[in-house]
Amino acid sequence: MRYAKCVGEFRPSPIRGMMKAVINPNVISFAGGMPGNDLFPIQDVRDIVATLPEAEFETAMQYGPTDGLPALIDLLTKDMAAKGFDMTKNRIIITTGSTQVMNIISKILTDPGDVVLTEDPVFCGSAGAFCAAQGKIYGVKLDGEGIIISELEKALELNPKFIYITPTFHNPAGLTYSRKRREEFLAVMAKHPDTVILEDDAYCQLYYDEDVRNEIVPMKTYAKNEQQIVYCSSFSKIFGPGLRIGWMVIPNNMYEAAEICKQSIDACTPQLSQMLAYEFMRSGRMTRYVERLRKVYKERRDTMVRCMKEYCPEVTFVTPKGGFFLWAKLPDGLDIDKYFDACAERGVVFVKGQAFSANYENNGHIRVSFSNIPPEVIEKGVKLMGEELKKMLK
Amino acid sequence: MRYAKCVGEFRPSPIRGMMKAVINPNVISFAGGMPGNDLFPIQDVRDIVATLPEAEFETAMQYGPTDGLPALIDLLTKDMAAKGFDMTKNRIIITTGSTQVMNIISKILTDPGDVVLTEDPVFCGSAGAFCAAQGKIYGVKLDGEGIIISELEKALELNPKFIYITPTFHNPAGLTYSRKRREEFLAVMAKHPDTVILEDDAYCQLYYDEDVRNEIVPMKTYAKNEQQIVYCSSFSKIFGPGLRIGWMVIPNNMYEAAEICKQSIDACTPQLSQMLAYEFMRSGRMTRYVERLRKVYKERRDTMVRCMKEYCPEVTFVTPKGGFFLWAKLPDGLDIDKYFDACAERGVVFVKGQAFSANYENNGHIRVSFSNIPPEVIEKGVKLMGEELKKMLK
Repeated sequence: MRYAKCVGEFRPSPIRGMMKAVINPNVISFAGGMPGNDLFPIQDVRDIVATLPEAEFETAMQYGPTDGLPALIDLLTKDMAAKGFDMTKNRIIITTGSTQVMNIISKILTDPGDVVLTEDPVFCGSAGAFCAAQGKIYGVKLDGEGIIISELEKALELNPKFIYITPTFHNPAGLTYSRKRREEFLAVMAKHPDTVILEDDAYCQLYYDEDVRNEIVPMKTYAKNEQQIVYCSSFSKIFGPGLRIGWMVIPNNMYEAAEICKQSIDACTPQLSQMLAYEFMRSGRMTRYVERLRKVYKERRDTMVRCMKEYCPEVTFVTPKGGFFLWAKLPDGLDIDKYFDACAERGVVFVKGQAFSANYENNGHIRVSFSNIPPEVIEKGVKLMGEELKKMLK
Repeated sequence: MRYAKCVGEFRPSPIRGMMKAVINPNVISFAGGMPGNDLFPIQDVRDIVATLPEAEFETAMQYGPTDGLPALIDLLTKDMAAKGFDMTKNRIIITTGSTQVMNIISKILTDPGDVVLTEDPVFCGSAGAFCAAQGKIYGVKLDGEGIIISELEKALELNPKFIYITPTFHNPAGLTYSRKRREEFLAVMAKHPDTVILEDDAYCQLYYDEDVRNEIVPMKTYAKNEQQIVYCSSFSKIFGPGLRIGWMVIPNNMYEAAEICKQSIDACTPQLSQMLAYEFMRSGRMTRYVERLRKVYKERRDTMVRCMKEYCPEVTFVTPKGGFFLWAKLPDGLDIDKYFDACAERGVVFVKGQAFSANYENNGHIRVSFSNIPPEVIEKGVKLMGEELKKMLK
């Protein structure tokens, strides 16, 4: 067989080679960006399945419309409108996980070699989708407030097809853009109306500090140039990634291309998953569940931050106000590969920051997830990381 | 925004504009290639969900490996080996419906403008995936025994990257290749080892005549050049399309490219769906269910064939020995668009054959699905079709 050129540009996920470690119960894994296994609303799902009327169950087992289960589209449309999105100018498409949004948007916008802007660091899964569409990724650095505007202006000279950003609880950077930086970002982008903005908001509901709520309002709800923005989010962090349900809010004039593109990818999103998401949301179970998640994840975040300060004082980081990740800067000059191997030897894994570099540079960071580990195990794992760090700094 | 070139080559499904009619309970729809709504194993799913152990449920709600749920991969590997596939030389990848197989294989093999061979007619969903990968589709005609070998030999001079065929219970042609034609096909293809064969076998378990069982053995199980073949099938017709679970049996040396490609598309196949498919298959429920499906669909096929002969004697067709479709040739010169509109007016819909033409030609056929309609409604629908046909032939 003779492969297409895109195969040479694939960017496999760093988790790919670590899956055995990530799911090994004897390993403390800070690697995967996963919800807590112990937190899934299993009884809710059992109850929904047990009581779902026959007619709805038939719908759940059958093919459905490419853009999604009508009942779930309606519910999300109302929810998005209540959150300030202009749902007269935009539509919902439900996707097979939000990774599929990256796949669809990059496919309909990117010819081989077209420039795609991302933040640097960038979520490797999204970068993987853009590379598969043969986009040339160009990363724009972040500071403590968000994307660096002067660097953004320079990068926009490359005439990118779109820019992908995660302004709230960034994966991997754990960062949240300030409201001021968001406004500056929108003002610059308004001068480049041909560059689509892809606003990824997968973690929006998982805030752990009340004071962050003013900052995390989605840009698409208040941007004058909101028609430039495709917004996406996901049920993966607020229900379960195993269902593979994400969605996008897409301007009416881009809807058709995206919908036909999705049709060619997988015909429709799993209907059973959509029906469960619909019932979970409609019945109010999701609201109660997310409240619980915030409490539990906040405790894990607090434990991670406390332990890092205590056991790894040589490491620096911005305390994440939500989401799953601590983006830790190791001491200058430390050999990250060696450090990773030493920790793995002790039974602790995380992801080396290089995997999130826009161009695979060593950025001196590691991504440490706290979402899928109970506090006492976080403490145990970070303590081991601290011991190995001290050995290497000797 | 500025779209990528592929958008201009998208080939939307004909069902897309008919979805409202297809799901309207007041319309008799012979249009969708859908399992019977009334046949889904709903109680089985309720039972599996009610009794699934907590640990498996957590797995079902979480992210999983890109190539699939390990337990389901193991089960399918054993099942495929038992059916004669050489599972030392091939691996399983579980996909989000078998449409995703078309998406992955065309993506890893096709650069824009590369030739892709299909049968003519061809399943529009697969053609849609190939067009989205910017392949140039070239159709090879079928006769009553399968693909026409002389036409295949001519088409192979175009140096195609791959050829897509559905030798068993073809969608839409309702046709099954004879064993002799399969051997001839393989012999010709062996002379073109760089052209991958994509063997789609979505309907393999739905045979209604015992005498067809010798013919429908998958080619990949006996081809000398089996390493040239990617085989795919699906749970959509033997469990439920709403789960979106298909799989491919792919040569070891193509596995990595396909797996990384899938990762960029949707990270992993719905775990909950996979867990249900695993339990449904492992517990023996699927075997019993498929036996029941064969009986019910056989009755629907028999009713459709009898009614067509009775009410539409002007129409010709090959009686399908399995699957969902009757591919009916209308009398020469009949205006299909007018006929479709007249039938739709009476509350009966089907799909015009043009949608399945490799190059959108009017081929004088219509596709009539009998799978999702009880016998008495089939009779009612075909009777109406016959009345409208007579009016037009007056």
